[in-house]
Amino acid sequence: MEAFSFAQIPIDRSRPLQPQLHSALLSRINEGLLPAGTRLPSSRRLADELGVSRNTVLIVIDQLKAEGYLESRPGSGVAVKSELPAGKVARVQWQSQEHLPPLSRVGQQWSNYEAISHEQCLPFTVGVPDLKAFPDATWLRLQRRHQERMPLRGFQEDQGYQPLRESLTHYLKTSRGVICDADQIIITQGAQQALALCALVLLDEEDTVMLEEPGYRGARDAFKSRNAHFYAVGLGDNGIDVTALPQSPPGRLLYTTPTHQYPLGGILPAADRLRLLDWAARHRLWVIEDDYDSEFHFHAKPIAALQGMAEQTPVLYMGSFSKTLYPALRLGYLVVPKPLVPTLVAAKRALGGETPLLTQAVVADFIAEGHFIRHLRRMRQLYQCKWDHLRALVEDQLKGLATPVARSAGMHLALMIDCQSDVELASEFRGAGFGSTPLSWYYASGKGRSGLVLGFANTSEAEREEGISVLRDLIPRC
Amino acid sequence: MEAFSFAQIPIDRSRPLQPQLHSALLSRINEGLLPAGTRLPSSRRLADELGVSRNTVLIVIDQLKAEGYLESRPGSGVAVKSELPAGKVARVQWQSQEHLPPLSRVGQQWSNYEAISHEQCLPFTVGVPDLKAFPDATWLRLQRRHQERMPLRGFQEDQGYQPLRESLTHYLKTSRGVICDADQIIITQGAQQALALCALVLLDEEDTVMLEEPGYRGARDAFKSRNAHFYAVGLGDNGIDVTALPQSPPGRLLYTTPTHQYPLGGILPAADRLRLLDWAARHRLWVIEDDYDSEFHFHAKPIAALQGMAEQTPVLYMGSFSKTLYPALRLGYLVVPKPLVPTLVAAKRALGGETPLLTQAVVADFIAEGHFIRHLRRMRQLYQCKWDHLRALVEDQLKGLATPVARSAGMHLALMIDCQSDVELASEFRGAGFGSTPLSWYYASGKGRSGLVLGFANTSEAEREEGISVLRDLIPRC
Repeated sequence: MEAFSFAQIPIDRSRPLQPQLHSALLSRINEGLLPAGTRLPSSRRLADELGVSRNTVLIVIDQLKAEGYLESRPGSGVAVKSELPAGKVARVQWQSQEHLPPLSRVGQQWSNYEAISHEQCLPFTVGVPDLKAFPDATWLRLQRRHQERMPLRGFQEDQGYQPLRESLTHYLKTSRGVICDADQIIITQGAQQALALCALVLLDEEDTVMLEEPGYRGARDAFKSRNAHFYAVGLGDNGIDVTALPQSPPGRLLYTTPTHQYPLGGILPAADRLRLLDWAARHRLWVIEDDYDSEFHFHAKPIAALQGMAEQTPVLYMGSFSKTLYPALRLGYLVVPKPLVPTLVAAKRALGGETPLLTQAVVADFIAEGHFIRHLRRMRQLYQCKWDHLRALVEDQLKGLATPVARSAGMHLALMIDCQSDVELASEFRGAGFGSTPLSWYYASGKGRSGLVLGFANTSEAEREEGISVLRDLIPRC
Repeated sequence: MEAFSFAQIPIDRSRPLQPQLHSALLSRINEGLLPAGTRLPSSRRLADELGVSRNTVLIVIDQLKAEGYLESRPGSGVAVKSELPAGKVARVQWQSQEHLPPLSRVGQQWSNYEAISHEQCLPFTVGVPDLKAFPDATWLRLQRRHQERMPLRGFQEDQGYQPLRESLTHYLKTSRGVICDADQIIITQGAQQALALCALVLLDEEDTVMLEEPGYRGARDAFKSRNAHFYAVGLGDNGIDVTALPQSPPGRLLYTTPTHQYPLGGILPAADRLRLLDWAARHRLWVIEDDYDSEFHFHAKPIAALQGMAEQTPVLYMGSFSKTLYPALRLGYLVVPKPLVPTLVAAKRALGGETPLLTQAVVADFIAEGHFIRHLRRMRQLYQCKWDHLRALVEDQLKGLATPVARSAGMHLALMIDCQSDVELASEFRGAGFGSTPLSWYYASGKGRSGLVLGFANTSEAEREEGISVLRDLIPRC
């Protein structure tokens, strides 16, 4: 390789020199331009040819020696190592993707997954609270309080920060009728991780999960991590239709949203809750109670949770701060029967380990010092105004085009709309700058009612007015 | 039930009255003390008997009506609802835990899991960086920059915050020889979630994983989420023994730590890396390259990653900010072959959704503005001093009692120690106020060498001296 000239190696002086020289030499060795045995010029001469300092050259040569590409030849400088067949590199290159190893069955189902890039939260994007109404000053004050605490940088407990679990115990008892000790609470990365943990420890692969139709897609995503099959239970006027609960259940898990059926609203009455618990007990079933936004009932105080209706229920109660604080916080919780705690903590350790401690410490104080309750009260009033306004707009402008179905409130309004494709409608609406979710997406079976679900919590009055008038023009065209 | 007296209901005026009254009435209805049909006194009289405001009574009664426990009787006040069989409640109570439904096979393996409460990070706790050396001022400045940005509170991308993925691409290329675009990077909740995502999409239940013996327990935890079996590959002088790689592989996945074998140290030479990649290619295997602390090599620049040694490798490269920044940040990343991206993003969406955006934004700038490289350089020097000091202490004081085996550096030192039980030794050491991990815990087979792994990064000079002298007394007694 006399022909090879080190002077030809391009060096960009605006970037770090060592890594450039390192990868330049490495690639030329791998490409066979510097085959085994090739002797390098002296470090001084190399430095001259490359126009870099001799020190840089020496460091890179040491590096390549350490990596086994170069070796010292006694008395005769440095050479490319002999037992380094350059051909090897070619052998590990793939010509195409078919050469990649196979995926798991769970992985295969996702191989064509199209990530939804939310880019930004648009007006009417479902599940987004009023981000501008967040109490920054209080939050920052609490954050400064904990910001530099060393113990909040290391490890503590996979189950979750003790003071947060204590705060939650009291909040859930007084606000939601949940009966638990702090040691039954597991802090999670949002509600989604709570669902994934349940799926992992309650379901074997290919088990069947009973769930509401229509229902929450995030739950179905989590259950798909177990390749689960779905048994759809229809809805009555007040949430899940307890008379439709199968008398020979196809699986051992029911997922339900009794306090505000998602997405259609509806509050399951106490008598039906008792029937549901009775059914679960008789058939030895687990029940996941997703209490995702009961904080935002406007008319009555939310009905007490299933979990607390009896001393020992087979209920895994879950909640999230995504709607009560904000989604990007990624904080949620599970309240589980005592015997399940070790299993779920082990599962959490396996799937992601601890939850960021600073966030947990701030939220713990935010609750304990009463800011949370006050924030919820403010948001409840704020959302009720927005809700009333949106309902009025729909009545007034979408009469005959859309039928609002939410029997309860919360942060979104579901509209039944007769149209060719609600997916099409939603994307047209998005084109006009508004988020929304096609109602059909909430049906596990795929074939469901068509319509749009509108998240109104993060909309301004003007946005609601514009959005609804845009829909008035769009709907007839779909 | 004339006998029943509302006056007997205890009310604690120091606590919120509504929830108390609500659950008091609810429990008495459920316990049958107020059976179906029972008429309640007028709200005014109830208020008097209970000693609360009439308004409180009215709110709670409305609440219990909404919940279906009470109903208005035309012209005759309020009564306990008739179709509410109080007996139902008793039926859903369990006398004992055996009545709980079964767990999944994965769940069962964890049912006796004992959570390790780290309480605090003790001196020599493995995996903890020097928390006091963290650049708070810079960090807080960057945090303030992003703190109140609304878009960082909502949803963006499950795959991870784009600017962070861009920053990482450049860092990994120049520092680690990783070849990737930002769209091949998936941000994770620490390295643990990266492992769990790989396990989910690469392994079917009960598949066999090939891994280093001894090796990283966190990886085994993640693989157990698939009920995986383990095939242990022994170590040579420089990490995994490539001559021991099975010629008829029992599974399709190898987990390895080539750049700093965990926990024993050792840097896999380039020629062995090529053999490993060649073996993986010939047998169509996936390789997880865990590059957990290559930033802290003291002697040479760390050897380039497996991932970047050829154009298309079957390598899933993973790293974490737990050691380079701090553990409670819970931030890690995966770099995967392009065809795997949709699958892994879907898996991340299912297991936990997005990663907190504020943290990602701060880390993105921390890297892009050069603070990260500077911090690493400072830590490398700091840890080298601590390492040299600890090595000297061990040489000097534990001669004949313990043999240091780490062939490389990083943040911990592994000691081979002949003793009855290194678990016993570690717990005695903990009793003296020092963290450490028994070497035997790193062996999947359970039967391995005995010793202790000491994390020295978070120790002071005095703590190192005291710790080693404590060990000098403890070891002979174990």
